[in-house]
Amino acid sequence: MNRKGENFRTIWLKPGDPEIVQIIDQRKLPHDFQIHDLRSCQDGIHAIREMLVRGAPLIGATAAWSLYLAGLEESTASRHDRVQQAAIELGATRPTAVNLQWAIKRVLAAIAGADDDDLVRLLREEAESICNEDIEISRGIGHHGLAIIEEIAARKPGETINILTHCNAGALATINWGTATAPIYFAHQKGLNVHVWVDETRPRNQGSQLTAWELAENGVPHTLIVDNAGGHLMQHGMVDLCIVGTDRTTRSGDVANKIGTYLKALAAADNGVPFYVALPSTTIDWNIEDGLADIPIEERDATEISHIYGESDGRVLAVNTVPTRTAIRNIAFDVTPARLVTGLITELGTCAATTDGLAALFSSGEHPGP
Amino acid sequence: MNRKGENFRTIWLKPGDPEIVQIIDQRKLPHDFQIHDLRSCQDGIHAIREMLVRGAPLIGATAAWSLYLAGLEESTASRHDRVQQAAIELGATRPTAVNLQWAIKRVLAAIAGADDDDLVRLLREEAESICNEDIEISRGIGHHGLAIIEEIAARKPGETINILTHCNAGALATINWGTATAPIYFAHQKGLNVHVWVDETRPRNQGSQLTAWELAENGVPHTLIVDNAGGHLMQHGMVDLCIVGTDRTTRSGDVANKIGTYLKALAAADNGVPFYVALPSTTIDWNIEDGLADIPIEERDATEISHIYGESDGRVLAVNTVPTRTAIRNIAFDVTPARLVTGLITELGTCAATTDGLAALFSSGEHPGP
Repeated sequence: MNRKGENFRTIWLKPGDPEIVQIIDQRKLPHDFQIHDLRSCQDGIHAIREMLVRGAPLIGATAAWSLYLAGLEESTASRHDRVQQAAIELGATRPTAVNLQWAIKRVLAAIAGADDDDLVRLLREEAESICNEDIEISRGIGHHGLAIIEEIAARKPGETINILTHCNAGALATINWGTATAPIYFAHQKGLNVHVWVDETRPRNQGSQLTAWELAENGVPHTLIVDNAGGHLMQHGMVDLCIVGTDRTTRSGDVANKIGTYLKALAAADNGVPFYVALPSTTIDWNIEDGLADIPIEERDATEISHIYGESDGRVLAVNTVPTRTAIRNIAFDVTPARLVTGLITELGTCAATTDGLAALFSSGEHPGP
Repeated sequence: MNRKGENFRTIWLKPGDPEIVQIIDQRKLPHDFQIHDLRSCQDGIHAIREMLVRGAPLIGATAAWSLYLAGLEESTASRHDRVQQAAIELGATRPTAVNLQWAIKRVLAAIAGADDDDLVRLLREEAESICNEDIEISRGIGHHGLAIIEEIAARKPGETINILTHCNAGALATINWGTATAPIYFAHQKGLNVHVWVDETRPRNQGSQLTAWELAENGVPHTLIVDNAGGHLMQHGMVDLCIVGTDRTTRSGDVANKIGTYLKALAAADNGVPFYVALPSTTIDWNIEDGLADIPIEERDATEISHIYGESDGRVLAVNTVPTRTAIRNIAFDVTPARLVTGLITELGTCAATTDGLAALFSSGEHPGP
């Protein structure tokens, strides 16, 4: 991810001080670019819950680094206990994204039976591995998704390829490159004429505040629209392709993602627009089949809807837009049934959003699978 | 419409000063309830264009009153010319709502061939008639829509009837009662257990700032949600009925309404939820068939998306939420194809959203028809 030409990750160990993990405080974007220090596991829990970091892969990585910070908090003999307790607290921070549980389990497996003296080193190595692997996963998704964009480009040579995305499944949601955005960045770097319709993504405005920001930093042409507008654009042939991310995908291909994704998938199906979901295999929950029945859907605080952050006269502040006597419900995710998904773009390749499609792609045994 | 227990219309002649028309400045709601004076036709044009008034029926009524104000501006001999010129200027203010053109034509027909001395009286009478008739039309819609809600109530006695609406097709969009809200107000007054899901309605937030406000003033239980959430609610059986308004409906039943309406209609169809459109017959454009091809769709200023109005520490101000390098498109309406509409609720009754359905309902000749 570029920022003023410099390449950035979204989470890293502070240079010169390996007891501090650093992140970008994503609540402050696009107005401020602030680096935030995590000095304890509690800081990591706060960062996940309050959405300083968000995006399924980055939530997983932050959980892994938080376990490392937990390991640092105790004297050698108590470290195992502290990490186990931290794993429980971290696991309860956000219910929908499955990467959180995956990362915690992976770290616990890596330290199982380890010597107390070795624990901190193993925790750090595992968090580093998760981050490095996530970047390779994003590259894989970018590579396989690029093929889909190239196919569209071949059908309309010289013309703009219009891609719609919802929420932020970008570099800021991962360690680098993103999931839904990786194919877009790869296509842009290859000189393909891509243009992105960016959904605002109420209530947290991840589209206008994160996706638009990172596309601008990377020089990718894009236009912001309200969440209501995608259907109209698709009716009028102004979208060639939708790509979104996901917080949890079932073994049958049902996709939980930011609230409103289902509505865009319906519009895509109604207008014959391909609708792809880009995901690391870590986002697949092989234990469940029926997304609507079995994926827990997080509800968040009403103030995320009533209070909108922005900049006025150089100050960043929140304004209230809602009458005080009005009740509010803030449902954070919805589930798009597999029947509306054209394909799943993973680090291993693209497959149909079906039990068979996923099983075939992940049958090699080298990767987590059914 | 209630406000602090007092009954209000949305537009009226100032008591004691018949050269001033008064409106509520709807841009200031829900934070301030400000009465705004229209002292000239130019004031009326400004009020329509800048959305101090909005909603197809109220736009039409405001145009009629603006022609009256135009008539007052000139000495007796020049009044016909001034009104004709004003009609052209008013007709260009907003392209999508057909009531604007209907009201202008109706006023011009009423004064055709009239004596110069009589002109102001006729202009005033016609504007008053349009307003009084609009209230009766809303009552008619309320009556016919109530029957639909009663049918649902009969199927789930004692339980809450959940109704989703988009934008504001309420009392504030008409002279009183509203179109989509009239059946809801009638049901509430009758003691039916209705609850309204109010879509926020980006970018102008007519849901959170107008619909929520007027439902609260009238004591109707309601919950605000983001535009993205309706699909999830329908997937989970939490919506019994959708009712929206429209700015223009074709003779075949295609419906132009606030951007995002199409997405809700798709979700309703996908989940077997009835999707009704409430409209005065003045909103039907009998001259066109294909809504997607033939209804002009207004695009508005980008700042409506980037700058969000709200209240902070007792001040009402706008905050910018968008990075400066990001392009924005603000498409104000979309078209819902008739195939997704369960029925059209008009002042004459409810009919299928088809050419035959509309033609049969309006074949009596007493009302504008095919």
